[in-house]
Amino acid sequence: MANPLISDRNVDFLLHEVLRAEELLAYPYFADHSKETFELALSSARKLAREVLWPAYKPMDEAQTQLKDGQVHVHPAMREIYAQFAELGLTTATRPAEVGGQQLPLLVTTLTNASLIPPTPPPFRFLGLTIGSAHLIEAFGTEQLKRTYMRRMYDGRWTGTMALTEPQAGSSLSDVQTKARPTADGHYLLSGNKVFISGGDHDFGENIVHLALARIEGAPAGTKGISLFCVPKKRPAEGADLDAETLPLVDNDCTSAGVFHKLGWRGLPSIALNFGERGDCRGWLVGEPNRGLSYMFQMMNEARLMVGLNGVATASAAFHESLEYAKTRPQGRPLASRDLKAPQIPIVQHADVRRMLLRQKAIVEGGLSLIAWCARAADDALRATDEDVRTARHKLLDLLTPVAKTFPAEKGFEANALALQIHGGYGYTSEYLPESWLRDQKLNTLHEGTTTIQGLDLLGRKVVEGGGASLQALAAELGNVCERAIATGDEALKANADALQQAIAAVGALTMELGSLGLSGDRDGMMRHSADYLELFSIVVIAWQWLLQATVATEALAKGARGEDNQAFYRGKKAACAYWFAAELPRVAQLAALCQSGERSYEDVKAEEL
Amino acid sequence: MANPLISDRNVDFLLHEVLRAEELLAYPYFADHSKETFELALSSARKLAREVLWPAYKPMDEAQTQLKDGQVHVHPAMREIYAQFAELGLTTATRPAEVGGQQLPLLVTTLTNASLIPPTPPPFRFLGLTIGSAHLIEAFGTEQLKRTYMRRMYDGRWTGTMALTEPQAGSSLSDVQTKARPTADGHYLLSGNKVFISGGDHDFGENIVHLALARIEGAPAGTKGISLFCVPKKRPAEGADLDAETLPLVDNDCTSAGVFHKLGWRGLPSIALNFGERGDCRGWLVGEPNRGLSYMFQMMNEARLMVGLNGVATASAAFHESLEYAKTRPQGRPLASRDLKAPQIPIVQHADVRRMLLRQKAIVEGGLSLIAWCARAADDALRATDEDVRTARHKLLDLLTPVAKTFPAEKGFEANALALQIHGGYGYTSEYLPESWLRDQKLNTLHEGTTTIQGLDLLGRKVVEGGGASLQALAAELGNVCERAIATGDEALKANADALQQAIAAVGALTMELGSLGLSGDRDGMMRHSADYLELFSIVVIAWQWLLQATVATEALAKGARGEDNQAFYRGKKAACAYWFAAELPRVAQLAALCQSGERSYEDVKAEEL
Repeated sequence: MANPLISDRNVDFLLHEVLRAEELLAYPYFADHSKETFELALSSARKLAREVLWPAYKPMDEAQTQLKDGQVHVHPAMREIYAQFAELGLTTATRPAEVGGQQLPLLVTTLTNASLIPPTPPPFRFLGLTIGSAHLIEAFGTEQLKRTYMRRMYDGRWTGTMALTEPQAGSSLSDVQTKARPTADGHYLLSGNKVFISGGDHDFGENIVHLALARIEGAPAGTKGISLFCVPKKRPAEGADLDAETLPLVDNDCTSAGVFHKLGWRGLPSIALNFGERGDCRGWLVGEPNRGLSYMFQMMNEARLMVGLNGVATASAAFHESLEYAKTRPQGRPLASRDLKAPQIPIVQHADVRRMLLRQKAIVEGGLSLIAWCARAADDALRATDEDVRTARHKLLDLLTPVAKTFPAEKGFEANALALQIHGGYGYTSEYLPESWLRDQKLNTLHEGTTTIQGLDLLGRKVVEGGGASLQALAAELGNVCERAIATGDEALKANADALQQAIAAVGALTMELGSLGLSGDRDGMMRHSADYLELFSIVVIAWQWLLQATVATEALAKGARGEDNQAFYRGKKAACAYWFAAELPRVAQLAALCQSGERSYEDVKAEEL
Repeated sequence: MANPLISDRNVDFLLHEVLRAEELLAYPYFADHSKETFELALSSARKLAREVLWPAYKPMDEAQTQLKDGQVHVHPAMREIYAQFAELGLTTATRPAEVGGQQLPLLVTTLTNASLIPPTPPPFRFLGLTIGSAHLIEAFGTEQLKRTYMRRMYDGRWTGTMALTEPQAGSSLSDVQTKARPTADGHYLLSGNKVFISGGDHDFGENIVHLALARIEGAPAGTKGISLFCVPKKRPAEGADLDAETLPLVDNDCTSAGVFHKLGWRGLPSIALNFGERGDCRGWLVGEPNRGLSYMFQMMNEARLMVGLNGVATASAAFHESLEYAKTRPQGRPLASRDLKAPQIPIVQHADVRRMLLRQKAIVEGGLSLIAWCARAADDALRATDEDVRTARHKLLDLLTPVAKTFPAEKGFEANALALQIHGGYGYTSEYLPESWLRDQKLNTLHEGTTTIQGLDLLGRKVVEGGGASLQALAAELGNVCERAIATGDEALKANADALQQAIAAVGALTMELGSLGLSGDRDGMMRHSADYLELFSIVVIAWQWLLQATVATEALAKGARGEDNQAFYRGKKAACAYWFAAELPRVAQLAALCQSGERSYEDVKAEEL
């Protein structure tokens, strides 16, 4: 295949050269691993991605999932793909051996996932939702729930969902209204309507387990009255042996009321789900009552990094497609050429086409670098032996998650549009794939917290509420990279390092100013430009990632990197870094000035004036 | 209907208050018109748009046009809609009475079109292509071609196309290869393949007339060897009376080889067309040999303004949809609220939602203002009695056309994405319309010259080749508006006027610098940042349009505008102006610095490094 979807060389670069995965082997949790087991995980994922998943992309995109006679049907290829996921142990890759897992680092699985997502996003989303929901049971559920549900989800026979959203409760989860009535038998009876439940129904696998938010009768209003329930599509028959190889199941009154037809991700069913239409929908409490939302949010960093990774992967597939197209499509002649009979040149030779390619590269590889960095930080936060390291990494991860979720979604959409644009009129047609990846990408600004929510989270919760400590930790992290960049002796990197230091100082000054607005009681004033704050913050973070990558590349070249391809790869890193610092970093000062300007046009405008 | 698609109040504002359409009545060409005839044109278009076109939008979007047994089938509603276009005289609205036209100003028809496009773009595109191709025959064709083709296109019985693009000749039209062999009978025999021919085949109307570019045997290479031909799908039978009410027709060997399935505009067939598969495809030369491309380009300003108008209209429909949604969708509570039991508030009350709405408004109404301004300039350029006025307006129109084409296409796409975003998860589904308008919009950055081509055209041809005279004329135009803004006594407008003067001075300085690079022989260096130049130029131009609108609004308020709605409308204009100057205009300095910085990352990067 001409399109690698994601660059293996780049993944290896991040894993070994930038983020030094082998260091993780020093943590006891990863003691049984080695460079070889990491490579095995990567290579088996790549093989599956290219041989099995990739051929399914277009067929799944062309066949919207359908609801017929109360049953949702997905593309037939889903069954085989999901079985292969399970066979490779992908459902438990990071989980501990005691639940059948492989104890792989998140850094490694994040980069294997980077291969698995772009060929066909919907199957991977089934996998991700199953992992996430089983993980909730693992973390907070009773032994019986683990025996009954988690085990069968982890072994790939049952799938899972996250059933949060309701028609009136999207961004405002505190408005969840699904009811849970306790019974004398220990379970609850659920009733309510959920919408946009990805993987909420399908016709492969044996059962579906919804991890659903609901309110126990009499619970307080708001987020503090929301509990987490395990609500299976089919529940074990009364008195069944829960350890039986084939567990007898009965219907649990979860009805698929409709399938949403979506702009992209057409292979992934998004379901409107009714619990308890017949009064017989049983749910089992996971963890303690009224703590459901806090449990969910303990999984949220991982879920949001996964969305960011999807954004990167979707943009990556399109980037490589447009790069290949640009190298092979002849059109036009050099600007200065007067020879009308000369053959046309490949469009990659036009400067503006290279601009569109380098911009895509900066977004795709800058985003992937950030997400891989976050995955490594998550491994440190979870598995480091030193508690101080764990705490410090956790804080940084919390701070960076809104950026890692949003940057690939928002800028990835721009990158996907550029890939389409490079294809000219052909890009607008279904003869090429960029139009479908553009459709896929748009979801990522919406699910797992919209961009607005991420902006409020970053500025309000992550930066200001923490008193600025996280931001100081980030500045220290950036400082280290700047020092390393300067140490290379490369003049361009030194200039970049200086600019980055100025930019993070500007972010600090802006944050102080906004924070003091908040302290003075003007929370609206503090948050007014949260979207601009998120944008400028993201530019700085991605600049840091590019400086890190370019520094590693410069060091490798200085050490005498061998092979023409290899040298070209490193030079490409330096080019994308140069582009980002020249074209994007200067926007930070302008956006910071906007945030500080007191500009309040949209604060003041009335609905009737719009 | 809740969604007006385009604001009538805003259209009236532009027509009468900003651009003073009544002044045009002083020109002899418009002497038979009056404010009443203008209003009649507007009101009949609005009625048709809302009652007939709008209900056809979703059905046409859902039914891709199909090619069956060599015949392309469009949605059945197209026939009735097109008949009503003809009945209203839309095919000849601006044309002179001698060809059956109404001699309406382009300013008026542009604003009637602003109503006709957003309810269902495909029918209007059929109309626009027919007007454009008939106009080519009117301007350059023989009397016989006018009698045979133009007349029947203008009366709405036949439709027209622009058949330019070939598989190897998209942006590079100089590579057109379709051949035309002269015959002793006066016609030519054409052979070749055309692609992306909008309206290139269909099953309503009696005939289709392709205005096609081709090379006469032995013609020089490049653009100077391209001629324009009239190539009907069916030609008059030998010896037929060309004036007969029912002209006997025979097949002219134009074969539909395929239909492109598109991301949007699904009701508009885009055809791969083969001329002369059986050696019997006759074409008639339009104008002189080898001047085809120059004829086409004489129509290009109008065609590009039409694309810009489409971009505005598509963004407008989505803007109004999201505004209505934001006013009615309850979600969340005020940031400072702690009352969990209080009802949820409509999302328009969240500042970031208003940001997304005001940004859309700034793009939509800023873009429409520019296009209407250009239409008025075109009327002056064509119909003013003073030749100096005609020449001056023509130059400004030439200069502004790349901006008027590209700004609505590129920023309109962003606006369309914001409209989807405001709908949250629902916006990603086909239950709401923003996803379909987003798909429609993407075409506008591609057809009638991609954004890259527009950037090269603006900087290379329009600004530098003219020696900067057009730019000086634009600066003078901006200066007038600034003076008028300052004269209102409004402090905010005065500050905006100062900022705009600085910005246009910055554009002037940048242009001098780039121009001297070109003069020194470094054409690549001059053009390297043509995309950034187009972007910063567009920001300034739209700022000018906003200052103009806000000034008119401020004057109206000062005169004691009556009615709460009316006052709110004017305040909205001031709010959007304030937003644009605060959020966008400061980007000009940053982008100008980038253009001047010598940044050459994508100039230098090699294909193998990407």
